Amino acid sequence: MPKASWKRRKVTVVGAGAVGSTFCYTLAQSGLAEEIALIDQNSDLVRGQVLDLNHGQLFFPSVDIHVGDKSDYRDTQLIVLTAGSKQRPGETRLDLLQRNASIIESIASDVANAGSHGVLLVVSNPVDVLTYVALKTTGWPRGRVIGSGTVLDSARFRYLLSRHCQVDTQNVHGYILGEHGDSEFAAWSMTRIGGMDIDSYCSICGFCDDCVGMRNQIEQEVRESAYHIINYKGSTCFAIGLALVRITAAILRGQKSVLSVSTLLQDEFGLSDVCLSVPCIVSENGVERIVAGHLQPEEDESLSRSAALLRQANKSLER
Amino acid sequence: MPKASWKRRKVTVVGAGAVGSTFCYTLAQSGLAEEIALIDQNSDLVRGQVLDLNHGQLFFPSVDIHVGDKSDYRDTQLIVLTAGSKQRPGETRLDLLQRNASIIESIASDVANAGSHGVLLVVSNPVDVLTYVALKTTGWPRGRVIGSGTVLDSARFRYLLSRHCQVDTQNVHGYILGEHGDSEFAAWSMTRIGGMDIDSYCSICGFCDDCVGMRNQIEQEVRESAYHIINYKGSTCFAIGLALVRITAAILRGQKSVLSVSTLLQDEFGLSDVCLSVPCIVSENGVERIVAGHLQPEEDESLSRSAALLRQANKSLER
Amino acid sequence: MPKASWKRRKVTVVGAGAVGSTFCYTLAQSGLAEEIALIDQNSDLVRGQVLDLNHGQLFFPSVDIHVGDKSDYRDTQLIVLTAGSKQRPGETRLDLLQRNASIIESIASDVANAGSHGVLLVVSNPVDVLTYVALKTTGWPRGRVIGSGTVLDSARFRYLLSRHCQVDTQNVHGYILGEHGDSEFAAWSMTRIGGMDIDSYCSICGFCDDCVGMRNQIEQEVRESAYHIINYKGSTCFAIGLALVRITAAILRGQKSVLSVSTLLQDEFGLSDVCLSVPCIVSENGVERIVAGHLQPEEDESLSRSAALLRQANKSLER
Amino acid sequence: MPKASWKRRKVTVVGAGAVGSTFCYTLAQSGLAEEIALIDQNSDLVRGQVLDLNHGQLFFPSVDIHVGDKSDYRDTQLIVLTAGSKQRPGETRLDLLQRNASIIESIASDVANAGSHGVLLVVSNPVDVLTYVALKTTGWPRGRVIGSGTVLDSARFRYLLSRHCQVDTQNVHGYILGEHGDSEFAAWSMTRIGGMDIDSYCSICGFCDDCVGMRNQIEQEVRESAYHIINYKGSTCFAIGLALVRITAAILRGQKSVLSVSTLLQDEFGLSDVCLSVPCIVSENGVERIVAGHLQPEEDESLSRSAALLRQANKSLER
Repeated sequence: MPKASWKRRKVTVVGAGAVGSTFCYTLAQSGLAEEIALIDQNSDLVRGQVLDLNHGQLFFPSVDIHVGDKSDYRDTQLIVLTAGSKQRPGETRLDLLQRNASIIESIASDVANAGSHGVLLVVSNPVDVLTYVALKTTGWPRGRVIGSGTVLDSARFRYLLSRHCQVDTQNVHGYILGEHGDSEFAAWSMTRIGGMDIDSYCSICGFCDDCVGMRNQIEQEVRESAYHIINYKGSTCFAIGLALVRITAAILRGQKSVLSVSTLLQDEFGLSDVCLSVPCIVSENGVERIVAGHLQPEEDESLSRSAALLRQANKSLER
Repeated sequence: MPKASWKRRKVTVVGAGAVGSTFCYTLAQSGLAEEIALIDQNSDLVRGQVLDLNHGQLFFPSVDIHVGDKSDYRDTQLIVLTAGSKQRPGETRLDLLQRNASIIESIASDVANAGSHGVLLVVSNPVDVLTYVALKTTGWPRGRVIGSGTVLDSARFRYLLSRHCQVDTQNVHGYILGEHGDSEFAAWSMTRIGGMDIDSYCSICGFCDDCVGMRNQIEQEVRESAYHIINYKGSTCFAIGLALVRITAAILRGQKSVLSVSTLLQDEFGLSDVCLSVPCIVSENGVERIVAGHLQPEEDESLSRSAALLRQANKSLER
Repeated sequence: MPKASWKRRKVTVVGAGAVGSTFCYTLAQSGLAEEIALIDQNSDLVRGQVLDLNHGQLFFPSVDIHVGDKSDYRDTQLIVLTAGSKQRPGETRLDLLQRNASIIESIASDVANAGSHGVLLVVSNPVDVLTYVALKTTGWPRGRVIGSGTVLDSARFRYLLSRHCQVDTQNVHGYILGEHGDSEFAAWSMTRIGGMDIDSYCSICGFCDDCVGMRNQIEQEVRESAYHIINYKGSTCFAIGLALVRITAAILRGQKSVLSVSTLLQDEFGLSDVCLSVPCIVSENGVERIVAGHLQPEEDESLSRSAALLRQANKSLER
Repeated sequence: MPKASWKRRKVTVVGAGAVGSTFCYTLAQSGLAEEIALIDQNSDLVRGQVLDLNHGQLFFPSVDIHVGDKSDYRDTQLIVLTAGSKQRPGETRLDLLQRNASIIESIASDVANAGSHGVLLVVSNPVDVLTYVALKTTGWPRGRVIGSGTVLDSARFRYLLSRHCQVDTQNVHGYILGEHGDSEFAAWSMTRIGGMDIDSYCSICGFCDDCVGMRNQIEQEVRESAYHIINYKGSTCFAIGLALVRITAAILRGQKSVLSVSTLLQDEFGLSDVCLSVPCIVSENGVERIVAGHLQPEEDESLSRSAALLRQANKSLER
């Protein structure tokens, strides 16, 4: 009688800094994975993170957490790239580009060579450009190389709107689209509070006098959130850790969730050959489908502006 | 130095049948409450349920579960009424009325006399009429006496739509409104899939040829769900248990969630003096606000039809 | 590039009665499985249960729940047998034997013929005899065919002791061993409260005058628990649902948990050719190891008495 | 009709560094509290942490997280002190003393002056000495001022033993007692694996040739864990975050859990006027009872050595 050989749910995380390790911590508590491999060039750092995580085993569902290496890519369902220098105070996300593109290229090449069948999720910034780099390096179908994009920004947007309108975050829906960066924008036409579109809700809400001003303020606060937190404490780690677990759940459970991850466009929204965030159906094989509905003209324009900026950044790497 | 005296999160459940006991079971696992009192006239049944629940203590967060009585109402944050005869195969929800109204009246009267400061949540059917009875009996402000209404029906609707469109249930939004019963209807104008309204989503989805026919079919399946399950297995208990925990969370955590509970209308949607389900903001004091947006003309008509039927039922009790 | 083909965590449950369906309900909420197949000869009942479970999808992690059949055995990691007539008021567990053995034999035969590589977990009563039947029928290695045994009884024991001694159930440890039935007994020599053996703890506790009497009373209450609940409400379902999820977690996560499941003894504790509950290390392939420590003489005697009774029952089936 | 006024479960955390903020993060996900106030003298840091935490609201149960100040002490059920300089590479825990005692004294004094009725949990190091300082400053009953002590060390111990013996961490029990620091020790006489004492289990386990050597190695590894992690990554945060949530659950739920928190001894184990870790029953009012069983002579000796070292440290502050 042959021994059962069930594949373990395995996630490999590259980069043991604040984002990578906080993601591992949150993932361990979620019970989603049976194995987590954490990889970093800094062998002291990665050993320290793995020790600190394993010392909490008593308090979360059983999971095998260990220091990983290239050999972990092959049988991994999801590979999460958080490696790369982090954004410095005052630095734009695009400034990080040159330093991080070659790191991602090298890792993506290792992943592809390992014969991995998993999904590659890029988190390192500037995430849209690096997703494009990773996709081109692997040669994989576009759905299997995705970026964390504006999943976090959309969560921030929903929180801010929720707090302002005094409605449960779970009942406020909306997406931040485009570049995960300065040109991102709120798709107000897709924003709903308790099932109502935003204009209708504003007409009955009564919590503010200046709805248009408030919307602009919230949109701007989302856009500047990362800068504020980096100025305050050097880096973000908590909300991104949770957002990454949300994406991981959609992939490991095959949930077909609609998430604003960064994905390669090929004629959707009239744009091509650029990775940026639009609503996507995410499941066990990554992006299964792009939800390419109609945006308002000014939203289309914002999306095109993001695309142009990102295409320029992509090109700057070719030289 | 005085001893700390923190009030425990306490929920009292009246009715130890399938719905009441399954709710207790799900509530215990949720960790939302520190005390659960279960009350039933059948002292054997209630003792058996409490034993069976307590034997699972090892497997859920610590909570004091015990057989309760009238003295439990006073310091309870939420009182859930599931008492009453259950719907029989072939019986309409309104048929249950005469048998259950006097039971609810008697319990609501005890609750009011106990000086309770909590929220009263009516689950017994026909829920809209019995919510009206309970509200009148207590004399409490309308927000504090509510019915489970169409929270479960809305969950069924979202599941069926989600399965048909192959999108995560979490990303499909919508409400079933009106009577929890044969005259209920889907508010299609409030339905969204991944941020898009239903017409827009249908135009890009491609999973069916006959969108209108499919919508009608799903709406009908929701309406007949309870009948089907009752025919198949005698009563529903699982999904309603979870739906009640969702409402409980909104109240115990003060979450300001938008839920289609049954509430007294006073001029909202042009209707008055009737309890039925519309989107409400639910928080620690029950219904805090009715989200009274614009419905489509045919939806307004359906709501009025539900209201007329329910008012008739309310009146039939006055004789 | 080949498409990723990750096996889903799949559990198949045979028997859609109170125990089987409550287990499915609890399992769905646990997030442990991505697929649950529920099988029953009563096609109405099983359809009703699956509908009622699926209507709760909004409230638990995404999982594919469906009516199953024999074809579901093959790719299932865990098959849980809850089929069979339930214990009637006044009936001993051994009385159930003749009615249920042939049912289990037929199912176990189907499971083996399907070429399943999973673990078979028997829950139907009398569980020890039926586990023996299922093991013989499949011809599988003993570790892969196990019974739920006294996992629930041990949980009841820990709860009762915990309540009496006023210590968190999580910090009270102990096992009920032997037959899941009238001859079961508490292994007092393995019982600990907050790290202390029971005699030492009793010497400092001070909550009762008659420790020996209290221990006897608790042990008896455990033994009679099922009878009480069945008398009160017809069947048990809640605590057993949770206990089964605990066993499932150990198997699906490969946790190497020590659980008092029913397993075939082969010289352990000086006993052979009988299935009963002793502490076992349970992991992805079922019982990985029997924790065969030293019991006290009177405990050894009780275990032998259970074994003798069960061997007699096993033999009664051979005629 | 008076409005219901249920007190929210509120936790106030002083110190927004890695430990304090990771605790808030883990607490938010646990759903245990409805309000979390985070206090720090560094107003940028605390604002950054609160922003980063709140941006995750979409992904955890609704909780009000905000920057706090002294006015938050009054209506708080649990105040957690993580303020103070952290241990530097190579530094002993006792070296931290002088820098941190005055900080804790000042905070404890504010807490007492605010008329708080909650429990004060000291986490800052050297935790035993600072717990003593805080207790003396408040003048509160000893049960209400406790230290995190060796709860984390005990979790590390159980994990290491579990991994070595290949048994689920949940089934390995034991306590590290004494000083949270270099003189701490494993209470081997209280250590159990699957219900068996350690000597009995070792006799049947077979995974190592040198049980005594292995035990010493594991005990040493626990003692050096913090040093290792601090050398590797600068500070610990993950496991301590989880351990603090475990203590918080015991208090907020009134669980009567046995935890090795640091508490003032008054004749227990023959020791007095010193705070150190022994098994305690922890509930809504802090330490409800010390589980003062018999230790082995060499364990008693180790406990006395810890006590002597700590009393010396306490005295060094009086000058």
